[in-house]
Amino acid sequence: MNFLEERILKDGVVKEGNVLKVDSFLNHQMDVQLFDQMGAEFAKRFAGKPINKILTIEASGIGIASVVALHFPGAPVVFAKKSQSINLDGDIYTAEVESFTHKNTNHVLVSKKYLGPDDHLLIIDDFLANGCALQGLIQIAIQAGATVEGIGIAVEKGFQAGGRMIRNLGYQLESLAIVESMDDKNGTVEFRPQ
Amino acid sequence: MNFLEERILKDGVVKEGNVLKVDSFLNHQMDVQLFDQMGAEFAKRFAGKPINKILTIEASGIGIASVVALHFPGAPVVFAKKSQSINLDGDIYTAEVESFTHKNTNHVLVSKKYLGPDDHLLIIDDFLANGCALQGLIQIAIQAGATVEGIGIAVEKGFQAGGRMIRNLGYQLESLAIVESMDDKNGTVEFRPQ
Repeated sequence: MNFLEERILKDGVVKEGNVLKVDSFLNHQMDVQLFDQMGAEFAKRFAGKPINKILTIEASGIGIASVVALHFPGAPVVFAKKSQSINLDGDIYTAEVESFTHKNTNHVLVSKKYLGPDDHLLIIDDFLANGCALQGLIQIAIQAGATVEGIGIAVEKGFQAGGRMIRNLGYQLESLAIVESMDDKNGTVEFRPQ
Repeated sequence: MNFLEERILKDGVVKEGNVLKVDSFLNHQMDVQLFDQMGAEFAKRFAGKPINKILTIEASGIGIASVVALHFPGAPVVFAKKSQSINLDGDIYTAEVESFTHKNTNHVLVSKKYLGPDDHLLIIDDFLANGCALQGLIQIAIQAGATVEGIGIAVEKGFQAGGRMIRNLGYQLESLAIVESMDDKNGTVEFRPQ
């Protein structure tokens, strides 16, 4: 069992409806030392790839991506925004993303200035379930002509379809913890062996 | 002139209406090595303060806060959210925040689980202009009974009222770059000497 799986067992809370709450350390309160460990692990798993940029999506992906990026020297983070800001120039890549959590549809967008054919991307996000956010980010990378070198996720819900679809497309998807099943009655979490 | 002021002169873009665009390195594409330098500088300026938590607000504060937090060992980051998520428990602190950029009003919220009377906060954000976001964060800190040990800002617009009001309230507010004036016709930026 790795450091993230251990932390989920210690501080994660299983709620009805296959909800895993990790907001005490991952996505509301954020343990940046844990993110630093995640960065070291992603650097190992994606060693040798010519990654020069990290792509993520607001809001909860930003903290992880920023600390992880310190393990990929010279790679800045670009985060996709969820609504058009008047401070962004008009020239943007955009994709539609459904949110399972918020039960709505967002347009995500990235300025064309910060993504292009020379970019070799590591996509980072906190959660992967049905994969909608990730599909939006991949769609934006494709629009930009960038290369997706890999995808690093903190927690994947292995019993939902997102991870399988992304792997079937040939992407190197590395999830530090893959939840196979949860039981809110006794609070247990089972992980896929890695 | 410090490292951030130099970077603003190099990569910032002055637009009509006193808009300073720094989205190539601060708040869309993010230079995390620069954030690391900012963290070292804040650690110096707030040395000796018993800071045990970093408070920020989504979205563009999160990246800076997460990297800065690595310079305050043991301090997690809590970010205030801008809309109620169904994954957050109902027990929240909330404040109203106007957005100059988006020309609207948001409720920001922090779960009561992650802020309380034992917390000694460093509040971090990317920009300070009229101070509305910051006032919302301070209001939430006060609701929680937490102590605001200091406030660290990347770029302050010194010609707007936010910084002066916060300093008049007695807070230690440290802005790494304070813009005194900008001229979009010749692209110049003048900083307040520190």
